[in-house]
Amino acid sequence: MATENFQAPKGTRDFYPEDMAVRRYIEDIWRRVSVRHGFQEVDGPTFESLDLYKVKSGEEIVSQLFSFTDRGGRDLALRPEFTPTLARMVAQRGAGLPRPIKWFSIARCYRAEQPQKGRLREFMQWNVDYIGDTSDRAERECLALCVDALREFGLDDADFHVGWNHREWLNRLLTSTFVSPDRLGAAYYILDRLHKYDRKALYSEQKCSDGEREWFDFIADTKNQSLAELTDLLIQKKSSGGAPERSQTAALSSEIYSTVREFEKRLKDNGLGAMCRFDLSIVRGLAYYTGFVFEVSDRQGENRAIAGGGRYDNLIKMFGGPSLGAVGFGMGDVVLEILLRQRNKLPGAILDNHRNPDVFIVNALEDTTCAESLIFQLRRSQWDAARARIEHPGLYAACSYRSTRNIGKLLQEAAASGAKLAVILAPAEFQQGLAKLKNLAERTEREIPLASLVAEIRQRCPAGPALSRPPSG
Amino acid sequence: MATENFQAPKGTRDFYPEDMAVRRYIEDIWRRVSVRHGFQEVDGPTFESLDLYKVKSGEEIVSQLFSFTDRGGRDLALRPEFTPTLARMVAQRGAGLPRPIKWFSIARCYRAEQPQKGRLREFMQWNVDYIGDTSDRAERECLALCVDALREFGLDDADFHVGWNHREWLNRLLTSTFVSPDRLGAAYYILDRLHKYDRKALYSEQKCSDGEREWFDFIADTKNQSLAELTDLLIQKKSSGGAPERSQTAALSSEIYSTVREFEKRLKDNGLGAMCRFDLSIVRGLAYYTGFVFEVSDRQGENRAIAGGGRYDNLIKMFGGPSLGAVGFGMGDVVLEILLRQRNKLPGAILDNHRNPDVFIVNALEDTTCAESLIFQLRRSQWDAARARIEHPGLYAACSYRSTRNIGKLLQEAAASGAKLAVILAPAEFQQGLAKLKNLAERTEREIPLASLVAEIRQRCPAGPALSRPPSG
Repeated sequence: MATENFQAPKGTRDFYPEDMAVRRYIEDIWRRVSVRHGFQEVDGPTFESLDLYKVKSGEEIVSQLFSFTDRGGRDLALRPEFTPTLARMVAQRGAGLPRPIKWFSIARCYRAEQPQKGRLREFMQWNVDYIGDTSDRAERECLALCVDALREFGLDDADFHVGWNHREWLNRLLTSTFVSPDRLGAAYYILDRLHKYDRKALYSEQKCSDGEREWFDFIADTKNQSLAELTDLLIQKKSSGGAPERSQTAALSSEIYSTVREFEKRLKDNGLGAMCRFDLSIVRGLAYYTGFVFEVSDRQGENRAIAGGGRYDNLIKMFGGPSLGAVGFGMGDVVLEILLRQRNKLPGAILDNHRNPDVFIVNALEDTTCAESLIFQLRRSQWDAARARIEHPGLYAACSYRSTRNIGKLLQEAAASGAKLAVILAPAEFQQGLAKLKNLAERTEREIPLASLVAEIRQRCPAGPALSRPPSG
Repeated sequence: MATENFQAPKGTRDFYPEDMAVRRYIEDIWRRVSVRHGFQEVDGPTFESLDLYKVKSGEEIVSQLFSFTDRGGRDLALRPEFTPTLARMVAQRGAGLPRPIKWFSIARCYRAEQPQKGRLREFMQWNVDYIGDTSDRAERECLALCVDALREFGLDDADFHVGWNHREWLNRLLTSTFVSPDRLGAAYYILDRLHKYDRKALYSEQKCSDGEREWFDFIADTKNQSLAELTDLLIQKKSSGGAPERSQTAALSSEIYSTVREFEKRLKDNGLGAMCRFDLSIVRGLAYYTGFVFEVSDRQGENRAIAGGGRYDNLIKMFGGPSLGAVGFGMGDVVLEILLRQRNKLPGAILDNHRNPDVFIVNALEDTTCAESLIFQLRRSQWDAARARIEHPGLYAACSYRSTRNIGKLLQEAAASGAKLAVILAPAEFQQGLAKLKNLAERTEREIPLASLVAEIRQRCPAGPALSRPPSG
């Protein structure tokens, strides 16, 4: 077995320090923005019983899962997404949770598929859910959080846009105009692909009637209309096509329609008008979403969707919980990282993955005892035992790993590290119980008694270490 | 399938917000302390090829793994620990990595076992490795980091101690005194259990000779001796037992013995003397460790080991990499969390999992448009586009989710939330383009034009949100 050459499994990633710095940057922004929007972090097991995943997605999901059997004969599967776990957790606590439930998770998820660009077999997914509110405030809280996070990455409406639609409105519009209820599934399937695939092939695959073909052609050609315009156009076409079936058109100007119109207005009020666009082709999971749905896309259209979500009012009940309105979305790390690299939005300090030490110990003594003890003391936090809290956080103390004791060479290394301070332990001063403390930026130095060195350095480094680039030159 | 009652799989955990706050606290300390000790974070896939795990641990490991087969027929397994992935990653980059390699990971790991107290089927493991250094500096860097992290959690030598041993020294001592090379495995097995199980049962299970029994009894009764004392005692016994085999005792006073003695001295120099104790019964993985080994235990002996590790100089080579000296340790979250709860070391703010908002919006207007837009603006970071950086981080802006517009009740809710500031949107001021900004701690308020409200609030909240308890009363 020895000396075999192993590699990471297909569709998974090794995170060397420079890769991990990027992943940590992404996860930290997801977390930071979630928290200031009032969401709380949760997580669950990486694997669940296989049956849990069938509740939301049916039997078909099984072929897309990594599944296995434990020693007790239970069928388990690695999570393809967090939502089933979330629904189970909410259902389990039921009425005991304060409303609204505002939760997020940063969960590692798995797909047993052929890896493609932007789609791996193992990935991180930011999952955000707002549960226990049927007002459209929930939609806006989720959407604002999603957009705010993308902005925090330095992306703006030149980089991404949000396409949105409303499933309940879409159902009514389609059934009021040209789709019979048994053809809704086919209609969604076609709408989802109308701008991506060959229309004729799509129509014949879905066995469309001539009437349906005419309607879909009409829809395809009215791309990029606003909600109001599109509704009017379709109702007009329906009315002009024969009997002006008043009861059906009336259904569209009812509650749903005004909800959706109000929603569109509120997006503008909240400064999201420029990046949010009504889009009839945003359909998403058929059995799952019940109202508003949205998808965030790369403005240049190069990549897969960056994020997606919507309202799913039936899900918690399906998992045995109370009937609770809910809105949520997910964003994966794979497409996001590709986009951030393409747009050059990853900060240099993250790409460099360099952290400036607070202090660099230059040891010119033959014995390493003092240098080592000093480093460990500096790295340790100063505890206030009486108040049971950290009085001063530990510092990032570094040193050379080379064997040289040449002060000049070691000071060069200290300066290159970006350290603010250097301690010089040299024989002459050391014999007098002293060390030199050098401010590398200001090029000043002072002799300090060894006994007060740690306190002196702590005083000069009030905060913990900050991630930053080494100084150039 | 609907309304089934699902639960988390056996031996896994649901992390509700209050549980996740504790996990996040533990992981943050692991990360923070690692970074200031100059270690860099890495990660790898959650699953690897099954064969990878056999390299380090042999065929026996297979029964302890969750394993499965992917669609390509590859045998994969969920990681039981991070070390094989680490060894693969180092081997893959080989000579290209700067030395020493100081890496840590916070990896979710899996064991297909019956769950027990302190031992679950899914857990987080902090893994620290220092690679490319054969000097005992590596041991001390790892040990200092491990102890510093425990201190950062508020634990001290009343709570835990470190038992250590040295495999190479132990090999020489045992073979120099009473153990034939083919009996080393049995001797380790017995030493590991000497103070935990019935001695006689252990001896007969391992088919000990009368001579071996006498030696093990002698060792058992010399518990808690220092390294020097124990070495002397055993050599003395050997010499007194017959021929004073000088060449063998000489082997023990050679390089290895002085290395180990020097190590013991350095622990004291670094202030670790009080919590580190030489312990002959610390043996750990037979095929894996090559020198220094250590284990961190609960001082009161209630729990399983808190952490463990040692030197493993052959591992990277076994995975096809260069021959590199290496020291590492692992610490799991399960025993650590039990210990922190038992010793009452989890800060109240973590247990409460409450975060004070920076600002609370009290909306007494019928229309929610202004309140909502204000909240979203405050939560958004202020970008400096020219410098492509965040000028002011987004604030944690909160509001009531109740339907009341009673200012008194809403202000009570604002105060209870621990918010520093409250914005009051009331009809009279609003009509004049004004809002009241109230400092809840100082009980002062001022009228501010709506247009400058966001800038004013940002000025009063210079830093991002901090995790703290709500004020009492």
